[in-house]
Order: sequence, then structure tokens, then C-alpha cells
Amino acid sequence: MADHSPHGATAPAGVDDVPRRTAAEEARTLVAGAVIATLSTLTADGHPWGSLVSFATLADGSPVLCLSTLAEHGRNLQGDPRASLLVAEAIGPAEDPLEAGRVTLSGSAHEPDGAETAAAREALLAVHPTAAVYVDWDDFALWVLRVDRVRWVGGFARMVWVDGRAYAVARPDPVAPYAAGAVRHLNEDHADALLEMAQALGGRPDATAAACTSADRYGLDLRVRTPDGPADLRVAFTPSVDAPDGLRAATVALTRQARDALRPSG
Amino acid sequence: MADHSPHGATAPAGVDDVPRRTAAEEARTLVAGAVIATLSTLTADGHPWGSLVSFATLADGSPVLCLSTLAEHGRNLQGDPRASLLVAEAIGPAEDPLEAGRVTLSGSAHEPDGAETAAAREALLAVHPTAAVYVDWDDFALWVLRVDRVRWVGGFARMVWVDGRAYAVARPDPVAPYAAGAVRHLNEDHADALLEMAQALGGRPDATAAACTSADRYGLDLRVRTPDGPADLRVAFTPSVDAPDGLRAATVALTRQARDALRPSG
Repeated sequence: MADHSPHGATAPAGVDDVPRRTAAEEARTLVAGAVIATLSTLTADGHPWGSLVSFATLADGSPVLCLSTLAEHGRNLQGDPRASLLVAEAIGPAEDPLEAGRVTLSGSAHEPDGAETAAAREALLAVHPTAAVYVDWDDFALWVLRVDRVRWVGGFARMVWVDGRAYAVARPDPVAPYAAGAVRHLNEDHADALLEMAQALGGRPDATAAACTSADRYGLDLRVRTPDGPADLRVAFTPSVDAPDGLRAATVALTRQARDALRPSG
Repeated sequence: MADHSPHGATAPAGVDDVPRRTAAEEARTLVAGAVIATLSTLTADGHPWGSLVSFATLADGSPVLCLSTLAEHGRNLQGDPRASLLVAEAIGPAEDPLEAGRVTLSGSAHEPDGAETAAAREALLAVHPTAAVYVDWDDFALWVLRVDRVRWVGGFARMVWVDGRAYAVARPDPVAPYAAGAVRHLNEDHADALLEMAQALGGRPDATAAACTSADRYGLDLRVRTPDGPADLRVAFTPSVDAPDGLRAATVALTRQARDALRPSG
């Protein structure tokens, strides 16, 4: 498993050294942000079968599905519980889908009982309220996919295996739903602060302009202009962000840290 | 097979009686409008595996893929050629994906040779020019999926099986790429003509307002207001449209037909 873990917060600045989400966290984050996926199941004669499904997840990231027992995929799972779920990042029409993130969750499905049924039902209805119409019908069944292994693909030729246990214990990035808005705001209103971060904390004192390309709980990715041409770098939040609304405070703290470092001493 | 064929052009007006795309044509049209899909294959131990792929199609609708022999799906197909491809209609963020169209193409993949290789390569590069970078690399292979059976789902609980032969000979709707623009134009600038169509040709002489909800080579779907409440109906193009740019002329002809029918006689 080529998974990589966040480094200590004191690691030197640079794209490769600064803490970043693990592949397990990337997978959990991507799955947490999606409500539709493609389910692959096996027909009675063992043929692979793809179908579109809505889904939710339990606390450990196990997907929850509600499938008609009359539909192909519902019948397929009753015959053979092996399944995988492909979840693709939502992207705009101008973006290349093969450059976007996606994850395959592979495992075995079961019909929950007891407390797991209640949890599965609740998770599903929280994300798909319209499922209330059919979730209790006799010809619909709840399924939970126990994930054994995970293939996360971050874009063209950028891919990592994650085992089921690492996937289950990883936490989705709490700031992911707010990251795009934060990046837009930083670029529109705080280009000066981004440049100071790049100069003081990103190892590029020669940077002449900076833009933020992405934000996550561990830091910001910046693209800078320098006399040598464009460069990518990353600056870390210390500490990393634990709350969904923590991105603003962390960015303010990072700006202050950069300004303190740039202030002439003596 | 519950497939339904277009009726004669002289069929009486009404939602169910007016010519409409067959399920095979719906499937071909949906597939022709997509460039990304989910491929379901089998791992070495027979587990179903979903992955995101770009694809193109040959003239008979057979999907063409170019897969790395190092990637899961490429290795899977080398081990077992059985596969299916789920193609989902592109929709806006506000739309419910489970109400949108999708199609599962199930069959067996093979590496083409001779003339089929050239055709597959050309089809792929026409849709995915960036594949020129890797299509001829040693560790990438072209695959053609021979489609044996097709499951078209037009929305929640609206689904039809199509056999591979019917899929192969059906033609994608040539006007599909222009339909959304035509619908917008009709609703913005020609609401009067739509109302006349509904009154004269759609069996609703009592309609007081009309909007177009979709357009295809066989006709227009209209939603009308009447003293009894809203109603859906369909009006047919006679003849149906064969050319990609034929929607405008067909709509003008339909308007003239409606006005002639409404003109006081004697």
C-alpha cells in the first residue's frame, strides 16, 4: 500500500513535505461529498453489471443503498453479495473527468439488521429524503456495503490502494464543502496575503504573485509566479483544521505568521 | 422485450399514440451524447469492479475504450472479457440523477484487429483528441465492447430491455445535440405557435397556454394549461427529421399545419 501519511507540522516547506490528506482521507472525503454512484454487481451467470444508484454512508464510510428487489442490481446482490461502488467527484462541464478524483469501494453487501438497520435507514433518509416514499416498501431492501479495499484515483496516473480498515478509520475532511468558496474568496480579496505566505512560509521569497489552487484541512496549495517561471507550493495550517467552519481562522493565522516572518527584525 | 416502435405518422394525436423514439433509439442517442462512463469488469477472483473510463463508439454503437494494461480494468479484461458500460445522461446540478436517463450496455470486450483497429482508433481520437498521447503506447490497448443486451432506464421506474441487434441497427437521434436550444427558443419566442399546435394538432382545442418540454426527431412534447388543469401532449413532425439541422424547418412546417387547421373554413 503506497498510502502516505501527514508529516509533522514542523516539516520544511515545499510541495512534497507539507502535510496533506492521506489517500484514505481523500477517499472518505470524496465519498462524503457524493450522493450518486455506479454500483457493479454480478448477474446470475457471473457477468459484471453496472447500474446508477443513490447512496449514503454509515459513520465508518460503509455505503448504504436501498434497491428494488425487482431491479437487476437488487436481484444480483441477492444472488451474490460481491459488489463495488464507483464514486466520482462532481465537476463542472469544462473540466476533464479523467483528471478529477474518483474512488472504487470494493467489498461485500449485506442486508442490515437490528441497530444497523436503523442507522442505515437514518443515513439514507438524511441524504435522500425522497427515499422515504419507498424505503419501507416490501419490494425494496436496504443494503450495506462492507468495504474490503479501496482504489483512490486522484487524476490521470495518480492512484493509491487503501485497505478497508484504513478507509473505515479515516475521517472525511470537514472543510471540504467550504473549500471552493474559500479559494475563490482568497483569490479575489487576499492575493497579497497569499503572496506573503508563499514568500515567508512556502520557500519562494522570490515569488511576485500567488494564487490559491486548493484548500483542505491541512493547508493551502499555491501557484506562484517567480523570475524562474511558475511554481507550485504548499503552506501548512498549524494546527490543522478540525471544524467545518475553521478554514477562515486558520487562514487568518497563517497570514499573521507570514507577516511576522517578513517583518524586518532589529 | 417491451420495446415500442414508432407508429405511423397518421396516428391520432395524444401522448401515447404519437411517434416517439424507440428504447433502442433512446439508448443509442444517450450513448452518442456521452464521452465518459463507468466500466464494470471482473477481477481475477471474479469480483465486480467499477472504474471511470472515457469512450467513443463505432458506427454500430459498440463502445471503444483505450485502457492501460497496468490498470485494474485493463488487467481485468485481459483475464475475462465480460463487461458492462453504464452511461448516464449529463444533467444539471439541480436535477435528480435518478430521474435522468441512463443505459447499461452489457457484452464482451475484444481487442480489435485489422480494419476494426483503424476504425476504433479513429472513433476514439475524434471524441478524445488527448488520447493521441497514449493510444499507441505499448502498455495501452484498444478494446471494443460487443453489446449483447441493453437496459435503458428513462427515469424512475421507466425501463426497457433492448437486444444487441436492435441496439446496433438503431440510429442516434440526429437532432439531440440541438434539442435543448430549440426548446428554449420555442418557449421564449414562439409560445403562440406552440399553443396553436396544441389546439389544432394535439387534441386540446381548450388549451389556453403551451410550453415545449422536449424536442426530438419525431415531434415535440408540450405541457398545456386548460380549464381542467395542466396536461401533457405530443405533436408529431410529418415527416420525421433526418438531418441534424432539420428541427427548425420541421417546427415551422408544424406551425403552418396548425394555423391551416385553425383557419375558419368557408
